[in-house]
Amino acid sequence: MKSDLDRLMAARGFDALVVIGGAEGNHVLRYLTGGAAISHGTLLKKRGHAPVLIVNPMQRDEAAKSGLEVITTAEFNLYEMVQETGSLFEAQLRMLAAALERYEVTGTVSFYGVEDAGYAFRLLTQLDERLPEVTVTGEAENTIFEAAYATKDAAEIAALEDVAARTNTVMSEIVTFIRQHQVVEGKLVKADGSLLRVGDVKAKLRERLAAHNLADDGHTIFAVGRDGGVPHSRGEASDELALGRCIVFDLFPRDMQTGYYHDMTRTFCLGFAPPEVERAYDEVMQAFNAVMDALEVGRAASYYQQLTCDVLEEHGHPTLRSDPTTEEGYVHSLGHGLGLQIHSTPRLSAVSNDTLETGQVFTVEPGVYYPERGYGVRIEDTVVVEADGTFRSLTPFSKDLVIAMEDA
Amino acid sequence: MKSDLDRLMAARGFDALVVIGGAEGNHVLRYLTGGAAISHGTLLKKRGHAPVLIVNPMQRDEAAKSGLEVITTAEFNLYEMVQETGSLFEAQLRMLAAALERYEVTGTVSFYGVEDAGYAFRLLTQLDERLPEVTVTGEAENTIFEAAYATKDAAEIAALEDVAARTNTVMSEIVTFIRQHQVVEGKLVKADGSLLRVGDVKAKLRERLAAHNLADDGHTIFAVGRDGGVPHSRGEASDELALGRCIVFDLFPRDMQTGYYHDMTRTFCLGFAPPEVERAYDEVMQAFNAVMDALEVGRAASYYQQLTCDVLEEHGHPTLRSDPTTEEGYVHSLGHGLGLQIHSTPRLSAVSNDTLETGQVFTVEPGVYYPERGYGVRIEDTVVVEADGTFRSLTPFSKDLVIAMEDA
Repeated sequence: MKSDLDRLMAARGFDALVVIGGAEGNHVLRYLTGGAAISHGTLLKKRGHAPVLIVNPMQRDEAAKSGLEVITTAEFNLYEMVQETGSLFEAQLRMLAAALERYEVTGTVSFYGVEDAGYAFRLLTQLDERLPEVTVTGEAENTIFEAAYATKDAAEIAALEDVAARTNTVMSEIVTFIRQHQVVEGKLVKADGSLLRVGDVKAKLRERLAAHNLADDGHTIFAVGRDGGVPHSRGEASDELALGRCIVFDLFPRDMQTGYYHDMTRTFCLGFAPPEVERAYDEVMQAFNAVMDALEVGRAASYYQQLTCDVLEEHGHPTLRSDPTTEEGYVHSLGHGLGLQIHSTPRLSAVSNDTLETGQVFTVEPGVYYPERGYGVRIEDTVVVEADGTFRSLTPFSKDLVIAMEDA
Repeated sequence: MKSDLDRLMAARGFDALVVIGGAEGNHVLRYLTGGAAISHGTLLKKRGHAPVLIVNPMQRDEAAKSGLEVITTAEFNLYEMVQETGSLFEAQLRMLAAALERYEVTGTVSFYGVEDAGYAFRLLTQLDERLPEVTVTGEAENTIFEAAYATKDAAEIAALEDVAARTNTVMSEIVTFIRQHQVVEGKLVKADGSLLRVGDVKAKLRERLAAHNLADDGHTIFAVGRDGGVPHSRGEASDELALGRCIVFDLFPRDMQTGYYHDMTRTFCLGFAPPEVERAYDEVMQAFNAVMDALEVGRAASYYQQLTCDVLEEHGHPTLRSDPTTEEGYVHSLGHGLGLQIHSTPRLSAVSNDTLETGQVFTVEPGVYYPERGYGVRIEDTVVVEADGTFRSLTPFSKDLVIAMEDA
């Protein structure tokens, strides 16, 4: 969590961290500023000191909401440097150098933040050349922020609970929307007599997400039949909704203000479930429950991927363990941490080196996939590891396979 | 436009362009792939050749919709390299090197795309060291894509017309929503008798944007009274809507599928306008009309900023030209190009070196701001420069200052 940063910096030999770039998609800037609604900012954190945030004077008030020390680009005469050099790049380079000097930063400085790749390359190469007492670096994998993100403090847990509650509500609203349709010859029809299609459900979903201040960037999976058997198919807008067909509904929006994600999947059949789907569903639920019952602080995250394979293989499903090339059966990992990123530490996968710890928040999402037989099944909750070592699902939504239609 | 890229590459001495990183916020990748719904991709364009797109095998079908040559990371044995090296970074570095070798790229290669700044620095520094026949570079400003984006081809104009039409519809829906409220003692009230506030309007706006497949990331400005006099205030959720108060409504959403933006602002008063606001509005409209009448291919973009200052100064408004430190009057530039980015070439500002050309799409947005007097006025259309040199607004929405309430 955030309070681990100084310790993690010492372990990595970093004297300072610098975050640059726009706020859009910049989870590091959001993390360190607590989501202040600024569009751009440069953040400097010297080891052992609180971060300092440098913003355009127009963004000073918003930046102050972060609670951090705020200074403006005017204090570095950024505007005058642009006039003098005719180059915003050169002016920004000089401002970065001046900021490091002002806070007496020397040694190894690691850079983060979202930038154009070529721009970052030029900026950091030149900064490294200009500052003899600073070594510019960055992190390619297992970054300090991935390590910090892995466990959440109380403020982050509260943000995750909040987005979880609204996401569960949206799924409930969509299920209610679907159930209220009439059924004609086994197919769902709208008030105007035309067929209800996946595109209609997604339009309703966009409306409900927006009403709850959630954003999914159109990535939600609502996949019917064969598409549900392809783990990454988002579903075809033209597909009809019909009784007895299997639907995989994977909803993972983020809160528009805080940026925190929830991630949940339900599989359902409208009206009734074919026996084969029902059996597969029960087997996935067995794997899900076996994992939930076995969750324990201190245990290797990879253990739970093995446990899932144990249960599913026992029922005859191929897995990536039994056949690394299989495209049927259980073809992915069990889960992943989430927070300001949808995929982060811990990884509940066969190759993971992570261990379960208090403060983690991660998904548990076993599934089996049979595209050729026209279905897939996945069940996913997001789980928080409490301070007392117990595990609590943030996804209370019903796990009933069959959704009874009102018109029945 | 896109067809200018080879010429622009030759002028800059680039033998190839490479775009890396995730698709989120990556306008260059979106531009070159025509918005194929991939989450990650590496794109290589050798000068004189069509781009090649490298994606994860799971994204092959989506990538193919771009119409580009698609190859998968499996052809570079990315997975095996990760297993062998234990490092996704090292594997990606080797894959990039292999891709450049496969397409016989030598010389200067310029990199783009959205990445973590430190990651990009390490990746490109190491790539540059490993490939003796390649010089890695990037662009800090006036990039080749900014130059290409400045003019639009027919497909881009069609996408911009499409998002423009829906944005105009949303503004109309919001105005209708506001007009239908009852007025009690000069304030707008909801069906339950409570006051209508900016937060309610923004909730309705989220719903309508979503219904039209538009995203604003919460950035829309709906600023009442004093807030409307601060150009970058988005408006306070708790502010009430009342007769005679001045509202600045700046709506600039992007299409969720194509990523293209529209940008429009209207200023209005509900029921009636105070005489001072009415006069300021007329003067801003005079500036707007003077600019629209004077638009001419081949003319310096900076001319129109001067023209706007001429008109507004004549009416006694301070401008940044008459007083560079003013925070009242006309305190910004006249306009900016837009497309896959909300701010791009041409810039209609005092320091711009741009010239008006056919195929450009830009905003015209004069305004005056008097926060201490409780109002601001801005009027903004998005304009396309037609092939025949005429100028067409994509923002037909009414420019009436006063919105008559239905309950009047």
